Amino acid sequence: MSAAASVMQTIDFQTEPARYRHWRLEFDGEVAYLIMDVDQAGGLFDGYELKLNSYDLGVDIELNDAVQRLRFEHPEVRCVVIKSGKDNVFCAGANIRMLGKSTHGQKVNFCKFTNETRLAIEDASENSKQIYLCAINGNAAGGGYELALATDHIMLVDDRRSAVALPETPLLAVLPGTGGLTRVTDKRKVRRDRADVFCSIEEGIRGNKAVEWRLVDEVVPNSKWKETVAVRAKEIAARSDRPGEAKGITLTPLERKIEADRVTYSHVDVEIDRARGLATVTVRGPSQTAPVSIEAAHALGAKFWPLTVARELEDAILHLRTNEPAIGVLLFRTNGDARAVLAHDDFLAETNGDWLMREIHHYLKRVLKRVDVTSRSTIALIEPGSCFAGTLAELAFAADRSLMLIGTREGDNRKPAAITLGEVNFDFYPMGNGLTRLQTRFLGELDALHRAKEMIGMPVEGEEAAELGLVTQAYEDFDWNDELRLLLEERTSFSPDAMTGMEANLRFAGPETMETKIFGRLSAWQNWIFQRPNAIGEQGALKLYGSGVSPTFNKERV
Amino acid sequence: MSAAASVMQTIDFQTEPARYRHWRLEFDGEVAYLIMDVDQAGGLFDGYELKLNSYDLGVDIELNDAVQRLRFEHPEVRCVVIKSGKDNVFCAGANIRMLGKSTHGQKVNFCKFTNETRLAIEDASENSKQIYLCAINGNAAGGGYELALATDHIMLVDDRRSAVALPETPLLAVLPGTGGLTRVTDKRKVRRDRADVFCSIEEGIRGNKAVEWRLVDEVVPNSKWKETVAVRAKEIAARSDRPGEAKGITLTPLERKIEADRVTYSHVDVEIDRARGLATVTVRGPSQTAPVSIEAAHALGAKFWPLTVARELEDAILHLRTNEPAIGVLLFRTNGDARAVLAHDDFLAETNGDWLMREIHHYLKRVLKRVDVTSRSTIALIEPGSCFAGTLAELAFAADRSLMLIGTREGDNRKPAAITLGEVNFDFYPMGNGLTRLQTRFLGELDALHRAKEMIGMPVEGEEAAELGLVTQAYEDFDWNDELRLLLEERTSFSPDAMTGMEANLRFAGPETMETKIFGRLSAWQNWIFQRPNAIGEQGALKLYGSGVSPTFNKERV
Repeated sequence: MSAAASVMQTIDFQTEPARYRHWRLEFDGEVAYLIMDVDQAGGLFDGYELKLNSYDLGVDIELNDAVQRLRFEHPEVRCVVIKSGKDNVFCAGANIRMLGKSTHGQKVNFCKFTNETRLAIEDASENSKQIYLCAINGNAAGGGYELALATDHIMLVDDRRSAVALPETPLLAVLPGTGGLTRVTDKRKVRRDRADVFCSIEEGIRGNKAVEWRLVDEVVPNSKWKETVAVRAKEIAARSDRPGEAKGITLTPLERKIEADRVTYSHVDVEIDRARGLATVTVRGPSQTAPVSIEAAHALGAKFWPLTVARELEDAILHLRTNEPAIGVLLFRTNGDARAVLAHDDFLAETNGDWLMREIHHYLKRVLKRVDVTSRSTIALIEPGSCFAGTLAELAFAADRSLMLIGTREGDNRKPAAITLGEVNFDFYPMGNGLTRLQTRFLGELDALHRAKEMIGMPVEGEEAAELGLVTQAYEDFDWNDELRLLLEERTSFSPDAMTGMEANLRFAGPETMETKIFGRLSAWQNWIFQRPNAIGEQGALKLYGSGVSPTFNKERV
Repeated sequence: MSAAASVMQTIDFQTEPARYRHWRLEFDGEVAYLIMDVDQAGGLFDGYELKLNSYDLGVDIELNDAVQRLRFEHPEVRCVVIKSGKDNVFCAGANIRMLGKSTHGQKVNFCKFTNETRLAIEDASENSKQIYLCAINGNAAGGGYELALATDHIMLVDDRRSAVALPETPLLAVLPGTGGLTRVTDKRKVRRDRADVFCSIEEGIRGNKAVEWRLVDEVVPNSKWKETVAVRAKEIAARSDRPGEAKGITLTPLERKIEADRVTYSHVDVEIDRARGLATVTVRGPSQTAPVSIEAAHALGAKFWPLTVARELEDAILHLRTNEPAIGVLLFRTNGDARAVLAHDDFLAETNGDWLMREIHHYLKRVLKRVDVTSRSTIALIEPGSCFAGTLAELAFAADRSLMLIGTREGDNRKPAAITLGEVNFDFYPMGNGLTRLQTRFLGELDALHRAKEMIGMPVEGEEAAELGLVTQAYEDFDWNDELRLLLEERTSFSPDAMTGMEANLRFAGPETMETKIFGRLSAWQNWIFQRPNAIGEQGALKLYGSGVSPTFNKERV
């Protein structure tokens, strides 16, 4: 089955170390070794072999899982060393035949997920103080070097052979798109003309020149390689504040049931209406009260509500992105007790000095960022019985639109819908642009931001929420169904591509960061190139790679 | 002749008010009225009519000319009011049938030029204190509203009919791409969900709601329209520092000769080698010494070297972009006396309080920015006889690569090539990202920036220039020809699309601004959408617009 033919094969983002085919984890006290050793017969689809530690989405799903588990299950690990389990090759990057056989949507989705995984590595170094080091023994080409770029310290063996390279442009007529170009200029701050040279050289750069050009942090003679890597890992570990004695929690398998039109988790439901191109994602608030102590929260482990919701919502979003490409609109609903949500938020904020609570906080942050870069129209529906409070209110602020019911519904004796802001809405969950969703929302209305802050802890009902600018529109029950129906009909009638482009622009007002540049600028150009005949036409470089036939380019510049 | 069939028709960016078909200029002392009154039969290509003040590249070439001439020829004008010369319509935006018939390259180039023109309007308001006001009498849709967005103050008549709108997405399945989305969120700071609503409504928003949503600055009843516009223009004019009594200079027709493989100006030559996909742009230094006084510089008018070079280089770049799509590489050469260049630079910097010198400074800045966003590989060749000094050194810093000759050439008794930095290289010419080219270049090497600054005024020869990081590579004469040939063969063998994407990313390290977001993020997404079948396929919205047939969309989200 080719990648293109297998769009409907369900891709599962859940895995665990015992099932890894491509990565190994080895532990040496405070240092963990994350070893890439790709099974070339283990591609997610047929039609290509994952030679030379090249990777596909399946390899990256394992990497994502490993990065995640290291944070939660191994508090004692303070430095993670990424290295290759193969001789003489570090990683050859994304598998080209896989890319050549993929649909446009598959390519774009693959790049997005790999970008998120690289950012998660950086988030681990920065915010979990589980600091990544990359030990490049062998060639690191394309996505292989991009993986290294995501770490805090890059070591390259000086064996007169091993090199770092971004050969995508000369070889494949596409960009080093997993953050490559942006990290070279904005993270490593390589001089732009050197970056231009580097990106034009198939064979890459090795030895001292790689250091001089800022492409790696150090080169080490082969004879001293192992010991120097170990020493550097120890030094890096010493910079970490992670507790040596703590006990990790296990990320137990998700409670999940996938049916034809529905995915059900313990606290998240996804209902899929393919005829209308909609999915409804309902997040349920906590069924327990907030823990009374840090110990109690630890004892809950993966059952602690904020962590459960982060994992389930993330899986639901990834599932919809990958397995339901024709679902254009996601409706966000919540259900439960706003006070219980806020109590959990407050608990998380107050205990943020604890390593596990810090992990959960940053995990929620990352999941919300996945929502921000999900290329589906998102609409929050705020109705009686909902709990758009604190962390869950971020779903409404992440949405392209939010609709709120004014008052109650006939025959429904629940209280009117309310949004309740918490402290967390004002600092806990920065977007990729470095601002909170409310800061971004009120970029031009600082007063509105201040007014919102004064409402912390107070349930804000429909009309007032609209007045305060917290929701897009508020409707009475009388109008609700018609307005919602019109909105959904309108939204699903628009060109999906125009929506993707529009949302990618409107969601990220204000400052840009390396992260927003990767998703906004680099990805957009890469997606453009992924459409161009020079890359994907019958005579294009991506199609002809490995065939022995040179591509034929249309020489016109656009 | 359709647009697609007429790629080879030479498009001329030079015009003058006497030849305008689409705009009128009226003067009332310190206020100028720039009146859009598009001749519907005056399209640049056949196959469409410019109804309802819709525009094509030809209309924008006149607008660009008008904005430019107002700055140079009318120092007394302190406020420019853009309005419509037609009843009941302001401007319907870019002509859709024109877009539907254009090639991909034509669409992209058209959008780039219109974006530059909008930015030039903003530059005039900010830096020339010739402040733009937009008086919207009638509907301003799409590019029409985007034109308004480029002004400092937007007035909308409240006649219960006139509205502002960005209907591109619902009507055409493309983005409001002439900066529209970015200016709505980042300049006007419209709340993102309101921006989302606004961009989904074909008919737009009018009246007080347009003010409340920050889409316009004021609405004015029809009965008070004319007088209020006049009052506001006077108020805005009062904020300007432009001299009332000064005399403008005339932007006389360029000295230009267009031949088959060559375009020749007084101080710029373009040699085109279509077989190799190259063009060489040679800029000549001043043939006179710098003026002795501001009066002397004014007397030179358009013959003043910095202004001459700005105009000629700009025209050359626009010509190559539009009329030579298959030229993938531009070689920049200079010729002349570095001291004379620096003397002119110093003169410009010292006299920057003078309105005309200020204009020339900002014009040079804008021309260099056009180089930055030109989607051709640019290579500076620094050889004996060249004058890469001060302003002209910016060409080397704008280039993707710079090659410098070490020492002299046999049989050539000129001194070795040198780069000479001037003060202007450290503050005078910010790029779109707000940094100078040297700041961007040395983002990771602040020391190198300081070392460069210490070299001001001193000719730096090949090896030292390479050592200081001012050039990409320096070669001896012995190696020069081979190295250059290899570089050019390599560069022209790469996919033109990959080069466009790579250069767009590598050239703009560091911070982002509204301007870089427009060219980097919005344009990239728009270009992607311009390739998608949902927009340009046989069943696409852009193709079917006006046919009465609804587009058929592939509903898969990417």
